[in-house]
Amino acid sequence: MRATYMYGPADVRVIDASDPQIEQPTDAILRTVVACVCGSDLHPYHSMKPNERGVSMGHEMIGVVEEVGAEVATVTRGDVVIVPFVWSCGQCDFCREGLQTSCRFGRQRTGGAQAQYRRAPLADGTLYRLDVDENDERMPGLLTLSDVYGTGYHAALTGGAGPGKTVTVIGDGAVGLLAVLSARDLGAERIILMGRHEARTDLGRRYGATDVVAERGDEGVAAVRELTGGDGSHVVIDAVGHLPAYEQALGVVRDGGTVTRVGVPQYQDGPIGREQFTRNITITGGVAPVRAYIDLLLPGVLDGTVDPGAVFDRELPLEDIADGYRLMDDREALKVLIRP
Amino acid sequence: MRATYMYGPADVRVIDASDPQIEQPTDAILRTVVACVCGSDLHPYHSMKPNERGVSMGHEMIGVVEEVGAEVATVTRGDVVIVPFVWSCGQCDFCREGLQTSCRFGRQRTGGAQAQYRRAPLADGTLYRLDVDENDERMPGLLTLSDVYGTGYHAALTGGAGPGKTVTVIGDGAVGLLAVLSARDLGAERIILMGRHEARTDLGRRYGATDVVAERGDEGVAAVRELTGGDGSHVVIDAVGHLPAYEQALGVVRDGGTVTRVGVPQYQDGPIGREQFTRNITITGGVAPVRAYIDLLLPGVLDGTVDPGAVFDRELPLEDIADGYRLMDDREALKVLIRP
Repeated sequence: MRATYMYGPADVRVIDASDPQIEQPTDAILRTVVACVCGSDLHPYHSMKPNERGVSMGHEMIGVVEEVGAEVATVTRGDVVIVPFVWSCGQCDFCREGLQTSCRFGRQRTGGAQAQYRRAPLADGTLYRLDVDENDERMPGLLTLSDVYGTGYHAALTGGAGPGKTVTVIGDGAVGLLAVLSARDLGAERIILMGRHEARTDLGRRYGATDVVAERGDEGVAAVRELTGGDGSHVVIDAVGHLPAYEQALGVVRDGGTVTRVGVPQYQDGPIGREQFTRNITITGGVAPVRAYIDLLLPGVLDGTVDPGAVFDRELPLEDIADGYRLMDDREALKVLIRP
Repeated sequence: MRATYMYGPADVRVIDASDPQIEQPTDAILRTVVACVCGSDLHPYHSMKPNERGVSMGHEMIGVVEEVGAEVATVTRGDVVIVPFVWSCGQCDFCREGLQTSCRFGRQRTGGAQAQYRRAPLADGTLYRLDVDENDERMPGLLTLSDVYGTGYHAALTGGAGPGKTVTVIGDGAVGLLAVLSARDLGAERIILMGRHEARTDLGRRYGATDVVAERGDEGVAAVRELTGGDGSHVVIDAVGHLPAYEQALGVVRDGGTVTRVGVPQYQDGPIGREQFTRNITITGGVAPVRAYIDLLLPGVLDGTVDPGAVFDRELPLEDIADGYRLMDDREALKVLIRP
C-alpha cells in the first residue's frame, strides 16, 4: 500500500509500505476513506530529529472495515467508521469515565492514518460505526470527529464555557476555530478569537466569534483586556501549544478564570507560580478524549446544524500529501483533506 | 499599643507602635481578642530581606469593634467579629462571585493582626459578626475561620473532593489538616495524609485521614501509588508551597485528576508541560476567599460538630510571640494562638 512517512523537518514522502495485518483478535483492518493533516503534525515537520527509517504519519481518518479479528463484535466488514486518534478499549475505568486517552490498554503502535490501509487495535472500544455511505458529502464534517472537533469541544467544555462567560480562543487553526464553534454551542456570551489570518478568522466569525484580535503577545493581551473592561476573559483556550501562547493565555485570563490547553505543549516548564496562585487561575485541558464526545456531536454534523467540515479548505490525493503539509505550514491552507 | 514586627530572618520583635486610627469612613478599629502565627509567616521568617523599619505581622484574628467610621453600617462598637485575612468590599462583582481575594477595593495596607489593635478597612464587607462573647471557649475554632479552616476548605472544594474520590493531602500543617477535615466533610472516600510529624498526623487521622504516608519525594510518590493500585489520587492538595511539594503532587495525581494548591508557591516556574497535558491534569486552587466560606463552616464550629481549633497546640501572650515563631519553625508547635 501507499503510506506517508516523515524523515526529518519538511521531509514528507509517500512510499510503498506493507499492508497491515490482523495482529490481535481485537484488531480491525481499515481502508482509508478520508484522512487529513493535523496542526500537530507541523510540530515534527519543524523540529523532528532526522530519522532514516521515517515515522508513519497521520491520526485522523474515516475508514471502511475490511477485516476484523476473531473477538471483534461491534463492527464488521463494510462498516464505515470514525477512527478517533487514540485507541481505547471502552471497558476499563478510564474509558467508562470518558477519559479514553488514558485507557489502560490504549498505548499501541500502529501505522498512521495518512495511508491506504491501517490496523485499528481495540476495534470494539475505539471505532464508531456510522450509518452513512462512504461517498456521503458530509464526510469532511464527520472526519473532524476523529480529532479537531472533539478537541475543540474538549477545550470549551473543560474551560467551562457557558452562559454569561467570555471565552478567548488563542489560535485560528482548525482546533481553535472548532473551539469557537463549541463555545458558542455551550452558550458562551462573548467569544474573542485571537488570530491573524483573515480567511480563518472570517470562518471563526461564522462559527460564533464576536470579536477578533490580530495582535499577539503584550499587544494582544492589552487588546483583550480592553475588550473586557480591563478584567480579562473567564475562559481562555490555548489551541497553539507554544510557550508564548500559554503566557498570552495567562495574560488575558480573568481572576478566578480558567486556561484550558488543547495545543500540545512544546515546553516542559512554564509560569505556574505566585501570580497565578494569587489570582486563583485554573490550568486544565489536555489530550482530548474525542471518543467520548462523538455521541453528543454527531447529530449536529449529520443534520447540518453545525458545519465543522468547513475547516477543510483544500483536498489532495494521498500522493500529493507533501504539498498539503507545505500549504498548511505556509498558512496557505487551513486544513488539508486527503483521499487515498 | 504593642505590635509584632519582623526585621529579617528569625528576627521577630514586639514593639511600641502608634494606635491605629479611622482613616476612611468605611474603616473599623478592632481590639484583638485572639490572633495567631501562620505557616505562611514562616516563609519570610526564613528568607525575608532584612529591613530596618520592620514589617508588621499577622493576618488572622478575632477582634472586638472599638470604633467605626461614618459609613459603616453592619457592625458597631462592642461586636465580636471574625477578620478574614483579605479585605473585601462585599459589593463588587468578584465579591458577589465569592472571590473576595480579588475584590476591586481590597488591596489596602494596614497593620498586622499580631498586635493589640488593628484598623480594618472595608468593615462592612470584610468583618463577620459573631453572636458569642469574647471569652467564649470556642474562640480557637472560630479563629480558624479567618484563614486556615477556610483555606483547607478552599483546597478540598476546588480540588473536587467528594464521594468516591481519593484525596491526598501534602503537608501536615494546620492548612493540610483542615483540608483533611474538609475533604472528609465533602464526602471523600479515602484521604491520604503525607506528613512526618506524628502528633500532627494523629490529629489528621482524627480529622478523617484514612492513611498516612511519612515518606517524601519519589519514595512518597511510590507509597501513594501503591496505596492506590498504581494509579494515584483523584485529588491532590498541596498545602506546602515549595516546588518539591508541587512536583510530588504531580507525581501522585491520577490521570484526569486535579492538583489544588493552597500553600503559597515559593517558585515562579514549574512543570506544566507535555506530561501534565497528556494525562489531562488540572492545576487549580489559590489564595482562599475565606470570607465566602464562613456562612457554611461556622455552624459546625459553633455546635461542636467539627473541632478545627484543635490545630492550636500552644497559647502564648503577645509579648512572647517570638517564641511562637520559633516553636512553629522548629515543629515543636503546630500552630500558636496569641492573646494580647
